[in-house]
Amino acid sequence: MKIVIIGAGNLATHLALALQNAGEEIIQIFSRTEISAKELADKIKADFTTDFNNIYSEAELYIYAVSDSALTDLIKNNIAPEAIHIHTAGSVPMQIFESVKSKFGVVYPLQTFSKNKEINFRDVPVFIEASSPEIQKNLFKLASEISDHVFEVNSQSRLQLHIAAVFACNFVNFLYGVSKDILNQSELPFEVLIPLICETADKINYLSPEEAQTGPAKRNDMQVMDKHLLMLENQPELKELYRNLSQMIFKKYLHQS
Amino acid sequence: MKIVIIGAGNLATHLALALQNAGEEIIQIFSRTEISAKELADKIKADFTTDFNNIYSEAELYIYAVSDSALTDLIKNNIAPEAIHIHTAGSVPMQIFESVKSKFGVVYPLQTFSKNKEINFRDVPVFIEASSPEIQKNLFKLASEISDHVFEVNSQSRLQLHIAAVFACNFVNFLYGVSKDILNQSELPFEVLIPLICETADKINYLSPEEAQTGPAKRNDMQVMDKHLLMLENQPELKELYRNLSQMIFKKYLHQS
Repeated sequence: MKIVIIGAGNLATHLALALQNAGEEIIQIFSRTEISAKELADKIKADFTTDFNNIYSEAELYIYAVSDSALTDLIKNNIAPEAIHIHTAGSVPMQIFESVKSKFGVVYPLQTFSKNKEINFRDVPVFIEASSPEIQKNLFKLASEISDHVFEVNSQSRLQLHIAAVFACNFVNFLYGVSKDILNQSELPFEVLIPLICETADKINYLSPEEAQTGPAKRNDMQVMDKHLLMLENQPELKELYRNLSQMIFKKYLHQS
Repeated sequence: MKIVIIGAGNLATHLALALQNAGEEIIQIFSRTEISAKELADKIKADFTTDFNNIYSEAELYIYAVSDSALTDLIKNNIAPEAIHIHTAGSVPMQIFESVKSKFGVVYPLQTFSKNKEINFRDVPVFIEASSPEIQKNLFKLASEISDHVFEVNSQSRLQLHIAAVFACNFVNFLYGVSKDILNQSELPFEVLIPLICETADKINYLSPEEAQTGPAKRNDMQVMDKHLLMLENQPELKELYRNLSQMIFKKYLHQS
């Protein structure tokens, strides 16, 4: 299938590489940022453009891997009205295409992508939605070429997936950063926390989050929590976060201990 | 070395197994809860007791792996005044032993332990502190038998390590649970999040938390965040948590994008 990719960010990059490895023909990359467009185009040996009017019209599939705010504008084009147009966003309903395209859908890979971190796309769950059973079949086939875990979900469920991902990934990574900052105050290297971080994630392969929970808040160990809050005295935001999360954990396990 | 372990919880269990594998002789387990004491004693083929007055006095090392609140009472004993007494708590200063023991210290393994999840203790960072250079040497030798990563830290730094661990592990695992609950509302299986959870942790081996951060809060993508907050309308605590964490992430990356 001839494909044009609109976007050259983290997701566009990993998706383009996975599709090319699967034998798909990516003919062009579009990005307003020339350095990003060129970088990705070079990687996959495709053409690139920064001018929306120069997007090729002969592709069969246009993949929009851009921010939600850019998406609304970018899909209002007249390129290839007979082609399939899909976006890759967790929180944008498929219906965004309804008034501007005739064949459309969504391919949402549930993963955190950074350009400088390789990933095995076959393990990435991919959630698809389409404007017709025929397109659904096309997208299922395409997604199955790059992933072993393809699911059909509607826009509402995809939004829930995205919210869950924000908690399980974006917020989690922020907490890694908080822990790093706390160690820095004692001039302790962040590396000593890596086994703990990896084990906390790995446990989820064997135990439910409820079974895996440990720590002072679960035990309602006020002695420990008070010491920790005292140490966070000069960082009111962190102190508040510590208090709120501990409170939520305590309430969750109140009737279990 | 002849060892008595006071406690039979998650940490006591993993520590006892690791020490036994390293060739140490654990002669007895004490726990007030008979079922736990017996379970661990059976595992390592040691004796057990639930009566504090029956703790053997011939051991050279007494390891207190109990909750912080139990610790204060338990160390006020007259058992084996010439032996080394150590605790394993992140947030309890070594000085807790000062008025009741002559040889003492701390061995703090920085990891999350659940009884039903195996672990490679050699990868666990272990932080030690001792009442004298001689005890320090003993504890370093002992810790090195079970772990490849032994560090000497004072009580203040150990407290910081514990706080960092609460953020990087206990709070992180709680967020896994939040994401599970959100998926349940759409009858989506939690399993679809596991690749994301594992990749988020794995990234930390290659990128700093700052480099690894992704998501709407980092991009200050209000469109997405507003949709998420709307979906969380009926869960005010989660909504507040979402808002606070997003705000903190946004502020952190304000001058970077």
